[in-house]
Amino acid sequence: MGEFELIRRHFQRAPAPAGDHAVVLGMGDDCALLQPSPGQQLAISSDMLVEGRHFFPDVDPQALGHKALAVNLSDLAAMGARPLGFTLALALPHPDSDWLARFAHGLFALADAHACPLVGGDTTRGPLNLCITIFGEVPPGRALRRDAARAGDDLYVSGRTGEARLALEQLRGTEWAGPAVDPEARARLERPTPRNALGLALAAVAGAHAAIDLSDGLVGDLGHILSASGVGADIHLSALPVAPALQGLPDPHRLECLLAGGDDYELLLTATPEARAAIAQAAADTGTPVTRIGRMTAAPGLRLLDASGQVLPFHPRGFDHFATRP
Amino acid sequence: MGEFELIRRHFQRAPAPAGDHAVVLGMGDDCALLQPSPGQQLAISSDMLVEGRHFFPDVDPQALGHKALAVNLSDLAAMGARPLGFTLALALPHPDSDWLARFAHGLFALADAHACPLVGGDTTRGPLNLCITIFGEVPPGRALRRDAARAGDDLYVSGRTGEARLALEQLRGTEWAGPAVDPEARARLERPTPRNALGLALAAVAGAHAAIDLSDGLVGDLGHILSASGVGADIHLSALPVAPALQGLPDPHRLECLLAGGDDYELLLTATPEARAAIAQAAADTGTPVTRIGRMTAAPGLRLLDASGQVLPFHPRGFDHFATRP
Repeated sequence: MGEFELIRRHFQRAPAPAGDHAVVLGMGDDCALLQPSPGQQLAISSDMLVEGRHFFPDVDPQALGHKALAVNLSDLAAMGARPLGFTLALALPHPDSDWLARFAHGLFALADAHACPLVGGDTTRGPLNLCITIFGEVPPGRALRRDAARAGDDLYVSGRTGEARLALEQLRGTEWAGPAVDPEARARLERPTPRNALGLALAAVAGAHAAIDLSDGLVGDLGHILSASGVGADIHLSALPVAPALQGLPDPHRLECLLAGGDDYELLLTATPEARAAIAQAAADTGTPVTRIGRMTAAPGLRLLDASGQVLPFHPRGFDHFATRP
Repeated sequence: MGEFELIRRHFQRAPAPAGDHAVVLGMGDDCALLQPSPGQQLAISSDMLVEGRHFFPDVDPQALGHKALAVNLSDLAAMGARPLGFTLALALPHPDSDWLARFAHGLFALADAHACPLVGGDTTRGPLNLCITIFGEVPPGRALRRDAARAGDDLYVSGRTGEARLALEQLRGTEWAGPAVDPEARARLERPTPRNALGLALAAVAGAHAAIDLSDGLVGDLGHILSASGVGADIHLSALPVAPALQGLPDPHRLECLLAGGDDYELLLTATPEARAAIAQAAADTGTPVTRIGRMTAAPGLRLLDASGQVLPFHPRGFDHFATRP
């Protein structure tokens, strides 16, 4: 038995009871087999995480296991799709059983919390690389697509943005971010909470139109909705929820964190004004804060408005993987 | 627009006509959306290819694009599942538009031939790494599983084995492999032909039981069927199809190529003796050679028999990613 066979054992678990999930056949064959619910559409997303780019080499492997799955769950949340399962492909420079055990612990804790089983994958030797592909299901016509926003829609954000970026700058030792690493902000960076219960509830709301999850920053990701939907947006800066850790920051850096922070894994949503009560109910039912922060417009482009309604000149950039990070 | 946005454009194509495929929503949203056929099960497989391990650094990118998808299509073939689509996650050390264009050309040529569209994925900077996850569909109960072999079944192999390994040894300059690189063998290594039409036809044959695709070598992969099904097998060595390029090799190396070569991407199948005519028909209908090479036994273990029925002592190893290759 090769070392990699031993490694795979970290990811093999007893099958869950039949009826609790869609898995007909899990790991160990040429393919996994799932039985989706009748008539549902399949939602699929894939993310690749590379050491030195998406995480620090000394990252806690348990947090990495959590985050690798969380960013994929977040994509399902943004479509309003129910998780069915995921595959994990893993390249490792040298198999380290302790590292793998901790990684698997973080991964499976989140997978179990979302009833989203690991159904297959691959392991090989190579520079550290994690690729997760996730599958969910959504009733036809109910997915929250980027191209579905309409002029006149309200614009909402779940939770609050910017803490992950603050923690990243603190870990890097950036001067404006202050000398200490804020533990809550660090948890947002390393163990983001995907908003799946909220996304599912929103997909059931009549009048909920477009959604996207915030991985590259609020302004950058909103830009994807604008271009896909052919609309513009006004954001009221004073409406944005601000975490305590961000309140003391100098203004440009606070705005950069809030609007272009990246790694937030919150949801942006557009919906008709008639849907306000239903959205508040979805937020309450799922215990997820949801804040109305602006409005979609027929006029193209994005405008940031201050408390008096004046347009601000600030133009933060979204995160590009060719920027220098981390 | 970042460099990676430019790179993504190599993989964006006009949507195919509706009705030809299962894709409701392709690239560019949080998730792709597919509409599987009613009642079908979903077959999923994921493979990660790393430079220096699965391919040489100077590999023709067009061949690499072909092979990356071929190994995944082969997993669907081995389950008897019809391809629906795939995702591609790609880490690149430095985006090279020419390299990408050639890679995409090889990838899409095979994807088009199998009506298997690219539906999503990810691109990032990092050491070269390709991760493809593929989805197919198969009627409930028809998938060709590794655990379905029964004592008394015939054992079949499609095509012929060993040429990919011969080419690999020739490219490495291994002395016994001879001084020149055999072009047909090299094509088998670099542009394997997944046996999807055959796999689909076999899944419809009553009495077809277990199948697996040959990625790690005939003996090693057959071992997976034996352990999953709790049976043994006799292989008649004289029945194995031998490519012309292998016929002049010294015996131990010829056997190593045939039985433990790796990268063959042929199918192994077990089926009841009553199914012989139907299997010959499936082979003829799909233009794929299929050869009966042995029998599954109640006695555990694998026996290699010579022309006179004597058991040979040869014990080739299957390929392990912790072996030194390439």
